[in-house]
Amino acid sequence: MSLTIWTNYELLPASRVLLLAELAKTGGRLLQSIGSSRSVLAPGKSDPALAEADIAYGQPDPGDVLRNPRLKWVALSTAGYTRYDRADFRAAMKQRGSLVTNASAVFANPCAEHVLAQMLALGRNLPSQLRNQDGHRAWRYLEDRAASVSLSGQTILLLGFGAIGRRLAQFLSPFGGRVMAYRRTPRGDEGVEVVTDAGLATALAAADQVVNLLPDSPATQAFMNAARFHQMKHGARFYNVGRGTTVDQPALMAALESGQVGAAYLDVMEPEPLPAEHPLWSAKNCFITCHNAGGTGEQDANLAAHFMENLRRFQAGEPLVDRII
Amino acid sequence: MSLTIWTNYELLPASRVLLLAELAKTGGRLLQSIGSSRSVLAPGKSDPALAEADIAYGQPDPGDVLRNPRLKWVALSTAGYTRYDRADFRAAMKQRGSLVTNASAVFANPCAEHVLAQMLALGRNLPSQLRNQDGHRAWRYLEDRAASVSLSGQTILLLGFGAIGRRLAQFLSPFGGRVMAYRRTPRGDEGVEVVTDAGLATALAAADQVVNLLPDSPATQAFMNAARFHQMKHGARFYNVGRGTTVDQPALMAALESGQVGAAYLDVMEPEPLPAEHPLWSAKNCFITCHNAGGTGEQDANLAAHFMENLRRFQAGEPLVDRII
Repeated sequence: MSLTIWTNYELLPASRVLLLAELAKTGGRLLQSIGSSRSVLAPGKSDPALAEADIAYGQPDPGDVLRNPRLKWVALSTAGYTRYDRADFRAAMKQRGSLVTNASAVFANPCAEHVLAQMLALGRNLPSQLRNQDGHRAWRYLEDRAASVSLSGQTILLLGFGAIGRRLAQFLSPFGGRVMAYRRTPRGDEGVEVVTDAGLATALAAADQVVNLLPDSPATQAFMNAARFHQMKHGARFYNVGRGTTVDQPALMAALESGQVGAAYLDVMEPEPLPAEHPLWSAKNCFITCHNAGGTGEQDANLAAHFMENLRRFQAGEPLVDRII
Repeated sequence: MSLTIWTNYELLPASRVLLLAELAKTGGRLLQSIGSSRSVLAPGKSDPALAEADIAYGQPDPGDVLRNPRLKWVALSTAGYTRYDRADFRAAMKQRGSLVTNASAVFANPCAEHVLAQMLALGRNLPSQLRNQDGHRAWRYLEDRAASVSLSGQTILLLGFGAIGRRLAQFLSPFGGRVMAYRRTPRGDEGVEVVTDAGLATALAAADQVVNLLPDSPATQAFMNAARFHQMKHGARFYNVGRGTTVDQPALMAALESGQVGAAYLDVMEPEPLPAEHPLWSAKNCFITCHNAGGTGEQDANLAAHFMENLRRFQAGEPLVDRII
């Protein structure tokens, strides 16, 4: 099968060479879009070259995809797919028998590691100790012992339970606590205690740690609002590696200021990039990483391997990994 | 059994009340030594009051213990027991049929959490991102992705394999990597790959992360010396929650400076407290916490519960938890 692959994701040279070698075997070709980016999150610009492609890899413009029925497979380079999560887009893909995949498998493991890193960093009071090292260098033996909280045996509520939540639940398993997952529609295969809307307030009140993994959608806008922060156990900790839009940030800052939320570690926020003068950077007990939870130094190689495995499956007529439509 | 318990550990009031209530049931009494300390690590001063005691709890002076054959049980408030790990002390305890316990079970879990927190903090590049938040507040999306390394699938070498190593191996299990434990004398019940002296150089060369859990003893003095740092994989990371004396610190600083050791996270060092002007505080890629790995805010309650469970066992003639002699 001689395929034309369009991409607006700028693979690193090593990964690009591997992909080109694979394509050369079947006389395929790679069209690098003029609007390419190294960021997997950058929205794609409209590109007439997409008309020649069988496969679009990266973040193609949704309108372009709708206008090009030749496309048989849209391979998204991200885990999130908000800009494609529209009724008209889904209907068109289904109607023409086109496939859509995301790259959830690439990002889930680093994201879950990132959340566990944040939980344990707060549990062991590491930020404060780094500031001590960079500052007075006091010997804070008793203070830092008293300020530490063991994660073992704690109650942890995951808001959303996709690939990241599943991986995080695996990491949390040896800690022997209670892990609850909030899902609107339980599937029965979660392997942890599942909470629906009816039980959410009780679950929020029970949790020592609330981890927001929700994607961006009309239903999740400001999901964590003042009322839900108020429902949390006083002093519990909050994490966000879902999307910034799912949190009412002024409500979070107020909850941090009052101590209702003991600390927050955010990897996503609104807007991104977060301007240097934004008050979230200096909110009380609020720690920020720059939407990098899913990334590692091997991200590019892992993305390329994920795409090439799916390309092999596509050519062999096998089911694709991370199919979303 | 009406027992007299001497202690030089200064329990918090809540824990003290519980212990006194337990002792009151059998007409027992608590002698609080004049040289008491809130630090579990402080060496005890000689105290004539020990002569009245059946049980010594805390860090009694070893000479005092030897001079008081009435003592039936020495309950150490620490995991480390270097100052009691002497041939004459062991022989005297065995000869008179006295028991010695440490508090390993209390400290092992927080210690293992601390090491995992350090590993993941470095893996996710959190220290650098905190410094960014406290400084320029740049949006370091691509840089921090590239600087992150997944712990999953890595090779981890534990130097020493007692209670902390076992717990850490449990935490590392879901990461699916290779965990090796160095022990001079394998017991066969480790559940992970065991390395002895013969295989140590090969194991050091294979490991992405080397975790030093060795106690202080004549055999472990400067165990991690220049030669062993040189045997490590270039850029691998080093952790120390054992004892500071087991590391040749100038050799570690040189290895950090050259990049041979990619980063170090130390909870123990020599001396302690580490003076503010000590070069280790500002060594390249070296992160320091103040010997607090074993501690949590619940440490005192957990220590008291550990001692009271052993007191129950002692009175019932059952085997003690964490018996070392």
